[in-house]
Amino acid sequence: MTPARIPGARTAPVIALDVMSGDAGAEVAITAADIAAERYPTLHFRLHGQEQVMAPVLARLPRLAARATMVHTDDVVLMTDKPSQALRRSRTSSMGMAIDSVKQGEADAAVSAGNTGALMAMALFALRTMPGIDRPALAALLPTLKNDSVVLDLGANTECDAENLVQFAVMGAAFARTVLGLERPRVALLNIGEEELKGTDEIKDAAAVLRSADLPMQFTGFVEGDKIGQGDVDVVVTDGFSGNIALKTAEGTGKLVVGLLTAAFKSSLLAQIGYLLSRPALSALRAHLDPNAHNGAVFLGLNGLVVKSHGSANARGIANAIGVAHDLIRDGVSAKISHDLASMRAHRPDAIAAAK
Amino acid sequence: MTPARIPGARTAPVIALDVMSGDAGAEVAITAADIAAERYPTLHFRLHGQEQVMAPVLARLPRLAARATMVHTDDVVLMTDKPSQALRRSRTSSMGMAIDSVKQGEADAAVSAGNTGALMAMALFALRTMPGIDRPALAALLPTLKNDSVVLDLGANTECDAENLVQFAVMGAAFARTVLGLERPRVALLNIGEEELKGTDEIKDAAAVLRSADLPMQFTGFVEGDKIGQGDVDVVVTDGFSGNIALKTAEGTGKLVVGLLTAAFKSSLLAQIGYLLSRPALSALRAHLDPNAHNGAVFLGLNGLVVKSHGSANARGIANAIGVAHDLIRDGVSAKISHDLASMRAHRPDAIAAAK
Repeated sequence: MTPARIPGARTAPVIALDVMSGDAGAEVAITAADIAAERYPTLHFRLHGQEQVMAPVLARLPRLAARATMVHTDDVVLMTDKPSQALRRSRTSSMGMAIDSVKQGEADAAVSAGNTGALMAMALFALRTMPGIDRPALAALLPTLKNDSVVLDLGANTECDAENLVQFAVMGAAFARTVLGLERPRVALLNIGEEELKGTDEIKDAAAVLRSADLPMQFTGFVEGDKIGQGDVDVVVTDGFSGNIALKTAEGTGKLVVGLLTAAFKSSLLAQIGYLLSRPALSALRAHLDPNAHNGAVFLGLNGLVVKSHGSANARGIANAIGVAHDLIRDGVSAKISHDLASMRAHRPDAIAAAK
Repeated sequence: MTPARIPGARTAPVIALDVMSGDAGAEVAITAADIAAERYPTLHFRLHGQEQVMAPVLARLPRLAARATMVHTDDVVLMTDKPSQALRRSRTSSMGMAIDSVKQGEADAAVSAGNTGALMAMALFALRTMPGIDRPALAALLPTLKNDSVVLDLGANTECDAENLVQFAVMGAAFARTVLGLERPRVALLNIGEEELKGTDEIKDAAAVLRSADLPMQFTGFVEGDKIGQGDVDVVVTDGFSGNIALKTAEGTGKLVVGLLTAAFKSSLLAQIGYLLSRPALSALRAHLDPNAHNGAVFLGLNGLVVKSHGSANARGIANAIGVAHDLIRDGVSAKISHDLASMRAHRPDAIAAAK
């Protein structure tokens, strides 16, 4: 492993993994790294956490051990810590040190399953936003009837103005071009109706800018919550409050339906036999909806990649979050976002004021 | 049918049905009234719409005809009309005339499957808000793993302040006491985290008031989107933007899962046989999630009852919306809301200022 400070100059990508902060514990996080090491043969790791906890696990995983460096710390950010408390431990905690590895050029991306607010605060403080970005946004993939869709912001910014939403659209489109491999992703603003007069002023102003901007995306206007699952839009743009509500309500409804389905299959002997016959087909359905399969939300808009794993993800889930980081490094998503932002600003230096 | 202007003085409840404004058409709306007439033997109807369309349908439905009066108009509010356009036709359109029937004391509740924005604008203009209520809220029942939950506001108010949210909580609790038959419903504010420091200032201020208020409810703090489906909260309070996003995302996710399930059952011969054996059990699941079974959102906080049916509801769905109106009339929900509001104001005349 030869760390380099020039982006793209390193031959082997390095992930800084915060091993300690998730609900599942260090062993699960290290197992996840081993799964990812198998999937991505060039990937290297910096494992941030307590050496006495990590060493025995690593001793059992020779494939990972050959490509991992342990960076010891005893300090862990708790799920209940406030962002302000966490910030004070930027230099001592496993989370803060993983982010610092990215800042120092020792890693290409940080991955953590810890406290979202703390991760956001530390990442923003250490890495700062890209030129042209006021606030980073948390983006993730959501399953739909067709391909996955990108949804952002998922909770990094409780309130957003029109300019924030426009920036999120640009970042989300660049993310979709990378992760979903789309040339001109279809981008829409989440709203409570599809007509132009619906929604808040922020949303209407952002729509006016996006309609007139010359960007590598297809802006399709507004999308309502019930249409997200249809997969007719590739990027759903919203403020962090609504995005978080939408993501979690979708998760909760998925669980509700699966819960009702399980009860239905147990309700009679015939239904139980029916379940046994349909089980292989239903397993595919479960896999399609499995949150672990869609794990890995990304803070977009920072000078460095930070990926957030679900706090309760299992080893396969965390390995998927590492996979998201791997793909973003490989495809140079940060450079794409910078380029699209610069291009929009060159064409529309004062887009929002002009659209008003 | 003997209309009376004194609330509660009429022996038989009367529904003013806007027959013309839904997507499904007049025949479906009148069939819905006939289904409701069978379910509720004391219910009477004022049918607002084109007599030449209504009369032939009514001629085939003697049970309904015996308890219905036709009120003729040619004017219909379209789904694409702006609220301001609709307002100008308050006296001429079937929607406006149905609301006016409530205002004039000729009916106890209006039911319409038309344009939500137009219905809200007309209802607010004609009926005005109750003393102590600044803005009406749209409330409905959502299926959960346990009992149904009340969710409000579902889109009547795009932006809300803390005082609005507190009023919605009071109205939602009174609604739950009536419709769900609960003594002290559990009420929570929809938020992006359960910790006290999460969310917007409006939500935090509203929580402070509700924590200290002496009301016939159990305020349980914040609830996240993924917990709505668990049914651990009876009333979910939110602004109209987030509420609409949550409701529609839940609907869309339900459809997504059912779509994936249908595909799974068709994916192999064994799965098809499995489906046939499980079908009775799965029908119960489908019924539990059927939007028609949960049809009927209520504008709470007006001096008169107005119930909104889903625009695409079928006859059974619209009959369920009429059923919601019937139950609200029977249980005197308007009086309960007034009482709870007066009681809160008596105890906390300046609750929000005090809590800050």
